[in-house]
Amino acid sequence: MLTLFHHPLFATCRFIRLVFGEYGEEIALIEEKPWTRRKEFLALNPAGTLPVLLAEGDVPIVGAMTIAEYLDETRGVLKRDRRLFAEDPMDRAEIRRLVDWYLTKTESEVSRHLVRERVLKPLMPEALGGGSPDSGAIRAARSNIRQHMKYTNWLAGTRHWLAGARITYADLAAAASISVLDYLGEVDWRDHPAAREWYTRVKSRPSFRPLLSDRVRGLSPVSHYADLDF
Amino acid sequence: MLTLFHHPLFATCRFIRLVFGEYGEEIALIEEKPWTRRKEFLALNPAGTLPVLLAEGDVPIVGAMTIAEYLDETRGVLKRDRRLFAEDPMDRAEIRRLVDWYLTKTESEVSRHLVRERVLKPLMPEALGGGSPDSGAIRAARSNIRQHMKYTNWLAGTRHWLAGARITYADLAAAASISVLDYLGEVDWRDHPAAREWYTRVKSRPSFRPLLSDRVRGLSPVSHYADLDF
Repeated sequence: MLTLFHHPLFATCRFIRLVFGEYGEEIALIEEKPWTRRKEFLALNPAGTLPVLLAEGDVPIVGAMTIAEYLDETRGVLKRDRRLFAEDPMDRAEIRRLVDWYLTKTESEVSRHLVRERVLKPLMPEALGGGSPDSGAIRAARSNIRQHMKYTNWLAGTRHWLAGARITYADLAAAASISVLDYLGEVDWRDHPAAREWYTRVKSRPSFRPLLSDRVRGLSPVSHYADLDF
Repeated sequence: MLTLFHHPLFATCRFIRLVFGEYGEEIALIEEKPWTRRKEFLALNPAGTLPVLLAEGDVPIVGAMTIAEYLDETRGVLKRDRRLFAEDPMDRAEIRRLVDWYLTKTESEVSRHLVRERVLKPLMPEALGGGSPDSGAIRAARSNIRQHMKYTNWLAGTRHWLAGARITYADLAAAASISVLDYLGEVDWRDHPAAREWYTRVKSRPSFRPLLSDRVRGLSPVSHYADLDF
């Protein structure tokens, strides 16, 4: 069984857990607090970022998209119509664009700030950056959410799955990203019916179940978080 | 001929120009100022980021690594020992890790800030974020450079090319990133002899020539920038 170093509320880590879930492969999870800069973890990934997969032979594979590409090359290609990636280079580029949108753009404009201010800072020692949440950073992140939900709503209303006719990495990355915001009660679903219908579909998949039972210390999810008919 | 929307001092764009150069394929360049949020450009890439490649059939391919993957799938696989990527999934993961290091980590910790403060802000209208450079941001970025040069020096001293025995995307991404800092005179080469020897090797390749004649308005490169024996 392979091992994933992860944090339960990082979208990048949730994305990889979903990929393993879809492929029906169990993994061992180790929760890492990257801000502690643990020596043994930095030896695996000098960048100190999550996720890190210990792959075959305990070789560390670093970063969400790099792990996803590795899993496609070593698993996906054998999955036929259950493959989460496309065959055609243009279709692959579109899937990669969307994964990058949710795991880099949404992350840097919205999720990273909300998770840091609302989840991590209250738990972190002051010397490592802990303390009271910065309400300005929370406000800025919240004002960006709408744009990302609007785009998701547009994609979900235009295509059956976000990158086309089949479920792909794009859906798993987007759902991973949005699920973190949903845990925090930051998503206003009323204005985005197509996104809501699509998210319900992803959320109902067996691969999603472990994410719906994730809990972080000091902060329970909103009441509808694990509800499949919200 | 394909078209690349780029900015001459963005490492992500330089990386793609190097890839085309190595494969001996000419491209048309269109310089884009993404902060103007030009409507026609946003239609190609709603994220408003660079680089964007207009590929076959004028389909936009968005983002440096996504373009690099596309070029590998449509060109690289045919290049045999001139391919800039590896065959083995683990080797591919290591190349992707390093590309991400230089184009995401170095970018967000160093290059983005120095380019914004020293190159773009003096040229940008105040309404779009222009104005005097923020000396605090410059200082913070500068204090991060050393770590990236130290890591590059370690890689270059341990391996012949940064990801192993052959030149790959990892070298082109790293050299693209460092070349921007070198243009700005921000690299102290004396302390990093292995990185210097490696960079001289990359810089001497024909694919690098167009980058060495790049100039941005209002800011000439340091005197050794285009010198192959610096």
